[in-house]
Amino acid sequence: MNKFLQYSQGELIISTSGQQMYEITENLNAWLNKEQINHGQLTIFIKHTSASLCIQENASADVIEDILHFFKKLVPENASLYRHNLEGSDDMPAHIKSMLTQTSLAIPVSNKKMHLGTWQGIFLIEHRSSSMQRKINLTLMGESAN
Amino acid sequence: MNKFLQYSQGELIISTSGQQMYEITENLNAWLNKEQINHGQLTIFIKHTSASLCIQENASADVIEDILHFFKKLVPENASLYRHNLEGSDDMPAHIKSMLTQTSLAIPVSNKKMHLGTWQGIFLIEHRSSSMQRKINLTLMGESAN
Amino acid sequence: MNKFLQYSQGELIISTSGQQMYEITENLNAWLNKEQINHGQLTIFIKHTSASLCIQENASADVIEDILHFFKKLVPENASLYRHNLEGSDDMPAHIKSMLTQTSLAIPVSNKKMHLGTWQGIFLIEHRSSSMQRKINLTLMGESAN
Repeated sequence: MNKFLQYSQGELIISTSGQQMYEITENLNAWLNKEQINHGQLTIFIKHTSASLCIQENASADVIEDILHFFKKLVPENASLYRHNLEGSDDMPAHIKSMLTQTSLAIPVSNKKMHLGTWQGIFLIEHRSSSMQRKINLTLMGESAN
Repeated sequence: MNKFLQYSQGELIISTSGQQMYEITENLNAWLNKEQINHGQLTIFIKHTSASLCIQENASADVIEDILHFFKKLVPENASLYRHNLEGSDDMPAHIKSMLTQTSLAIPVSNKKMHLGTWQGIFLIEHRSSSMQRKINLTLMGESAN
Repeated sequence: MNKFLQYSQGELIISTSGQQMYEITENLNAWLNKEQINHGQLTIFIKHTSASLCIQENASADVIEDILHFFKKLVPENASLYRHNLEGSDDMPAHIKSMLTQTSLAIPVSNKKMHLGTWQGIFLIEHRSSSMQRKINLTLMGESAN
């Protein structure tokens, strides 16, 4: 019943334009679709400390809005609260928000697609105000069809 | 010294009845015990965005109580704070509490058991008030005895 | 293009002396350097519930200071807030801070080194005030050079 594992790695580059949650579910499934591994596990890893990853409901824009609002209140962009202010008032809050969410996520894969719950989507959370290019490393481990 | 990896997947269904932390350590070890892989790594993934996973001390009921109380204060069930209120006043806080904890966890496996610290237990955290059926995907990667 | 996976496990023991973030990037790369697996993924798992893991900027001491200060304010060491106080006023906050950060982290590996972003470092976060010995399990999965 057990299968020998293979693996493959890739990279996703996402352009962001300000503090927002960017859904990357389709980008990830598109990459998986081109790979030779059908079943197993995908690990995604963001190579930044002022942007992060999460899995959230992708059916309601209000949910996303409420989440962003919660984090903005929890970690205020108020320079007087932080020592590290060289890179702008959104920089130190960006590091803290990254710590409170995820740098890496592991997701099961079935038939070349992520095996998610009905309401789950994968998001990149941009915590900086300016436009950024964000790099996400993809590691797929599993078995091929034959 | 290195070993070729095999893998196996499964699912755990947990019935919950209200906001609480439900220990699933024994459920996971029972599943591992039936598998052919002895050493390696187990990844667990919860297929929901209003329930989540964590590893915590499982020796004291007070620790669990204090944790639940902390999160309730940090993310109040006050409808006026959120736009998304269709599904009840516990719904939006459930999404936020899920974001602040884990959707996936990777745990080392040794001799068909999770290789945990003395005080560590694995918990499903139910953030909704009503009774739910929660699905957790299990991915085991490692080597068999022979 | 796909490669068959191998794996290897190890342990890192870190001595801590009080609430601080201890960078372990070099400890992890030193371990990877001695292993036979060149490319793949490293998962680190801390066997404690009052110390945790994160990936953060390692270029500025002020960033670390600001992060520790944020968590201290968010989770006050005030005995009257918690039921569980047997082990000191820093104990219950330590459990909560662990829940808000990570117990396990997966990191891509390339040429026997972690494939990190320019500013990323791996940290053990000690949430207790007294001196501790902390155990981190290392699981490396990937392919060897030949």
